[in-house]
Amino acid sequence: MSNASPPFDKIALLGIGLIGSSLARAAKKHGLAGHLAIYTRSPATLAKAKELNLGDSYSDDPAEAVQDADLVVLCVPMGAYESVAKAMAPGLKPGSIVSDVGSTKQSVFGDVMAHLPAGIHLVPAHPVAGTAESGPEAGYAKLFEDHWCILTPAPGTDRAAIDKVQDMWSRCGMMVEEMDAAHHDHVLAITSHLPQLISYTIVGTVTDLQDDLKKEVTKFAAGGLRDFTRIAASDPVMWRDVCLKNKDAVLDVLGRFTEDLTALQRSIRRGEGEALHEAFTRTREIRRGVIEAKQDFIDVKTEDNGKP
Amino acid sequence: MSNASPPFDKIALLGIGLIGSSLARAAKKHGLAGHLAIYTRSPATLAKAKELNLGDSYSDDPAEAVQDADLVVLCVPMGAYESVAKAMAPGLKPGSIVSDVGSTKQSVFGDVMAHLPAGIHLVPAHPVAGTAESGPEAGYAKLFEDHWCILTPAPGTDRAAIDKVQDMWSRCGMMVEEMDAAHHDHVLAITSHLPQLISYTIVGTVTDLQDDLKKEVTKFAAGGLRDFTRIAASDPVMWRDVCLKNKDAVLDVLGRFTEDLTALQRSIRRGEGEALHEAFTRTREIRRGVIEAKQDFIDVKTEDNGKP
Repeated sequence: MSNASPPFDKIALLGIGLIGSSLARAAKKHGLAGHLAIYTRSPATLAKAKELNLGDSYSDDPAEAVQDADLVVLCVPMGAYESVAKAMAPGLKPGSIVSDVGSTKQSVFGDVMAHLPAGIHLVPAHPVAGTAESGPEAGYAKLFEDHWCILTPAPGTDRAAIDKVQDMWSRCGMMVEEMDAAHHDHVLAITSHLPQLISYTIVGTVTDLQDDLKKEVTKFAAGGLRDFTRIAASDPVMWRDVCLKNKDAVLDVLGRFTEDLTALQRSIRRGEGEALHEAFTRTREIRRGVIEAKQDFIDVKTEDNGKP
Repeated sequence: MSNASPPFDKIALLGIGLIGSSLARAAKKHGLAGHLAIYTRSPATLAKAKELNLGDSYSDDPAEAVQDADLVVLCVPMGAYESVAKAMAPGLKPGSIVSDVGSTKQSVFGDVMAHLPAGIHLVPAHPVAGTAESGPEAGYAKLFEDHWCILTPAPGTDRAAIDKVQDMWSRCGMMVEEMDAAHHDHVLAITSHLPQLISYTIVGTVTDLQDDLKKEVTKFAAGGLRDFTRIAASDPVMWRDVCLKNKDAVLDVLGRFTEDLTALQRSIRRGEGEALHEAFTRTREIRRGVIEAKQDFIDVKTEDNGKP
């Protein structure tokens, strides 16, 4: 922690799961707030956050937690945004900033903005980082380092408010970029939501096997299946909400994927060796792009070895 | 290497790609053969194998390479099994063992057994190990360690021949199991072929995006997409052959997967939150099974850090 005064006098974190508790730890580590207030609905989780010493004050009332806060960050499941936004609204300090950490961004305007008093600056954000773990114990300050954070403020949003949110995530070690919310939802539907839903489905298909076969499949899962089971162990509430909140983009990419898979099945049924070889060769181009963008090594480190 | 005499006087490896060259290195390391003969069709690859000092003799003639060998291991792409089997047959030593390393096993009987002289013992094998790399430079002796090797000999196969192949893979560090060939093809269609084909398809879907979107998708691939791009960088010839050789089992599991994916799309379109939550929760059971079977940690080590 440096001797300079913190960039925020008070930050309120609403929700203290994997992302919320990681942000709490990062905020302490980097001295981001003079005071860190934590809200969560569940008494057990609130007690756990207190036990872990994640903040400076704890409350089960959103309006109380956000009192005098310069920055409020919604870290609850996206399905709870609307009710929490309504509940916190009376406590918000005039001119303060409201942000979030959700995986879909267009929905934030409908779920949150509509309930905010005039003069509050909404700066939706998506720190693209996570593990398959959940809960306040699962968080760690380095979770965000070297990952992207995407901000999706509406046109005309106060520049100073955007800059303050950007500065916070930069101090947490993230590379920050601004993007239109609809574009974010489309890009992430491809890079994140599609792989996740495919992983759930493939592991679901295995789950439906007869018990004796399932046992053997688990035993020999060393091949490709292992990666999918890790992805498919992610938080079900979060992914339910992604499906409901980003429905159109998700259905669009699932539709494209299904078309491509149908074409592959047809080639296999017809024994079209050349078409199969061509299909399996062209995908290497994307791999090279990912390696050049250094997304590969960054993530291997974070997911497998980066956790303290 | 121990002072005991090697278990085989001469081993012939036909094909010297990732698996063949890894077996050559493991054979040297563990002293498995008095003489190691290497065949490959391509003059450039044969020269590379010689330069890497992978064997004791080198030939571009299968019948010459297998001369006097106690054990012949087919390591060529499965699409070449039939022509190589025909070409090597006149050189085989009476009573010798022929094995292989291919990913599908029923097809070996049709492609190889039909062309072997009487008195040769066929013991098909599948060492379930690999990386996304290919070629003789990509191999390493530790590739096989702590992975499964599945043997699928026909009923009535000479027990001593089976035991010798089992012993070889055990000395390479593998856990060896015997299985009916059809059952192998069914289990591996689920654990290996399905995840592979899904990965190719999802990366193919991304490859078809417009260039500007593709660039951004690659940039933000840190989420689930990264794992898929690694899997989809695997050898296209090998996977073409898997599709052609294990067509029925592959189409069966792709059919089940497609049904499940269609049901998921329907739940998303209808906004069925409870059904989505249930689908995303039950997959955790399989993850626990994989972790209990220790398949997780074994593979993370081998793929990410195990290569010397």
